[in-house]
Amino acid sequence: MNNFNLHNPTNVLFGKGQIENIANKIPADAKVLLLYGGGSIKKNGIYEQVTEALTSHKVIEFGGIPANPEYAVLMEALSIIKSEKITFLLAVGGGSVIDGTKFLAAAALYDGETPWDILTKNIRTEVGMPFGAVLTLPATGSEMNSGAVITRAETKEKYAMGGPGLFPLFSILDPTVIKSIPQRQLSNGLADAFVHVLEQYITYSVGANLQDRFAESVLQTIIEVAPKILKNPSDYEAASNFMWSCTMALNGLLSQGVPSDWGIHMIGHELTALFAIDHARTLAIITESHYTQNLDSKKEKLAQYATRVWDVTEGTMEERAKAGIQKTTEFFKSLGIDTKLSDYTADYEGTAELIAKRFTDRGWLKMGENGTLTPEVVSTIVKMSY
Amino acid sequence: MNNFNLHNPTNVLFGKGQIENIANKIPADAKVLLLYGGGSIKKNGIYEQVTEALTSHKVIEFGGIPANPEYAVLMEALSIIKSEKITFLLAVGGGSVIDGTKFLAAAALYDGETPWDILTKNIRTEVGMPFGAVLTLPATGSEMNSGAVITRAETKEKYAMGGPGLFPLFSILDPTVIKSIPQRQLSNGLADAFVHVLEQYITYSVGANLQDRFAESVLQTIIEVAPKILKNPSDYEAASNFMWSCTMALNGLLSQGVPSDWGIHMIGHELTALFAIDHARTLAIITESHYTQNLDSKKEKLAQYATRVWDVTEGTMEERAKAGIQKTTEFFKSLGIDTKLSDYTADYEGTAELIAKRFTDRGWLKMGENGTLTPEVVSTIVKMSY
Repeated sequence: MNNFNLHNPTNVLFGKGQIENIANKIPADAKVLLLYGGGSIKKNGIYEQVTEALTSHKVIEFGGIPANPEYAVLMEALSIIKSEKITFLLAVGGGSVIDGTKFLAAAALYDGETPWDILTKNIRTEVGMPFGAVLTLPATGSEMNSGAVITRAETKEKYAMGGPGLFPLFSILDPTVIKSIPQRQLSNGLADAFVHVLEQYITYSVGANLQDRFAESVLQTIIEVAPKILKNPSDYEAASNFMWSCTMALNGLLSQGVPSDWGIHMIGHELTALFAIDHARTLAIITESHYTQNLDSKKEKLAQYATRVWDVTEGTMEERAKAGIQKTTEFFKSLGIDTKLSDYTADYEGTAELIAKRFTDRGWLKMGENGTLTPEVVSTIVKMSY
Repeated sequence: MNNFNLHNPTNVLFGKGQIENIANKIPADAKVLLLYGGGSIKKNGIYEQVTEALTSHKVIEFGGIPANPEYAVLMEALSIIKSEKITFLLAVGGGSVIDGTKFLAAAALYDGETPWDILTKNIRTEVGMPFGAVLTLPATGSEMNSGAVITRAETKEKYAMGGPGLFPLFSILDPTVIKSIPQRQLSNGLADAFVHVLEQYITYSVGANLQDRFAESVLQTIIEVAPKILKNPSDYEAASNFMWSCTMALNGLLSQGVPSDWGIHMIGHELTALFAIDHARTLAIITESHYTQNLDSKKEKLAQYATRVWDVTEGTMEERAKAGIQKTTEFFKSLGIDTKLSDYTADYEGTAELIAKRFTDRGWLKMGENGTLTPEVVSTIVKMSY
């Protein structure tokens, strides 16, 4: 097990009826900016619950944060934060709204030249404006971690950012929200959380038995509840396990003391930026190729995964590893998610070279847990995914 | 899954060489009281590492906190905290030293009549004096939770206490310390952590699949590493899994959204108070009788435990449940821990009635996850454990 430093101060309020508790969690004298996305919260009753809870607070609203939170839109929100002297941010939405709010929490207190630097110069935020979240779409884990991904449409690029000052002060996780989520987004959430776990688990062994078992626990639970959720999103038991699994998949616990990969995400982000394919679906496109290409270095963990998670008990280590990859692809398909780039666009020629060039231009020359994910290997993986 | 409220702000620094980081974690202008136990830290090198890290801090020492931290001893430490105007507490030891430090963190800021009230009137501590911990004995999980158990020798009683103000600010978990721990205490730590998980897991199902799997993960890991640790405490891989499992067994994660029992602990504490039997061993004495007596209400979870953790696949639910109980007893014995009260004392007659009367006197009339653990049932369980 590697050394680690774990600190996650987010207060999670989980379950039915928890939204009303935001009133006690936000300082009474705060001036609140309520941030949301496309407006689904006005249809599913969440908006009413939130505004009712905040009747004693001063609240201004900012809606319209798009999926893949967009820099230009966030800059509009930032100017409101400054002009209205906002002191507390409340994200009501999924990962995009929460990620956008994290950028704003960082930008609001940033004293450098331009907030753009936070993204391009990898500036970690030690202290951000305090914020909370009401999660309406389980998937990204953003509700209990300190990271975010921001998009700039102009340049078709996505940037990761974060820092210890960007944990939500609190997050409300009420699984009853799941019944109002469209199937496509439920599938995306299940696939996204699943790959979050894989990125922290399918690497090489450092003898971290407990972390391995925790990762397997989340994967097994997602596999267990996925068909139930897709069949009946009103199944509270399945919904609560789905929601809690998504949070635990990326709240920092699984990655303590073990290597992480994140190669699938790095490549996947480019597919979203280039083709506007849903984030989760880009992960499903890349996973099989990535693991097939990196079979040698990952086969021990892939075989363990196949055996413990998918009950593959026959065959050599390599055979079980390959079976684990196959099971993963089948799982994505069972969610109704296609796993080839050509399923999403006819215009895929040259994508591999373009993404490889972007990696090169950014200096991402040796990525992945072993530093062997070179731009050349990235190009091969993307081609295998066509 | 039941509703829950999770908030664990403790910063865990895990691994080799982490002790030197306490210097950055304790405010430079703090006046520190360094608390420890019987002095083993002066033999295993921990004391030197801690004092070396704190050469720039003002530090006073208080040693001699006994196993089962004793109220009278802690009151001596409290008078030093007041007379020396201490502002930060540093526990260097196992669960007893950390628990004692939590009592002091609460008592130092308590403005009631006497700190004794904290124990007898169940006063929760919202804000305590800040403190950190350097863990030298994995077992109790106290290093990452906000609870403590304090003993008063005069009356042979143990009291639970706690509150959100009693999370350690940081805890250092360096597994290299394990090689200097006597076998008896290693066995105790393994058994203690194991039963911590059982108390949060062997209840009734509320459809919390992920919590169940996390609990099983900790149990499986403890079972895996136990023989390695006892054979070779210098095995860093086994030691690190052991240490992290003990922390995860009782840092609040496993109990979120599920019922908890704690019947074994409540009865076990009385055996320690009456006979000075090691805490972990009292748990081993009570477990089999408790689960046998409560088989009807616990058999679903016991059978799941038997199948998933011990690979018992044959038989009816009741048969598998009984096999799970038997496996647990065998596990304690594999640690060199006897599981009957008569193995520890010849003077056990009347113990059942005495403990039942104590439960009655305290108004503990309906304990356990179903409220069915009456003083009468307690008496039956203790008799079965003779």
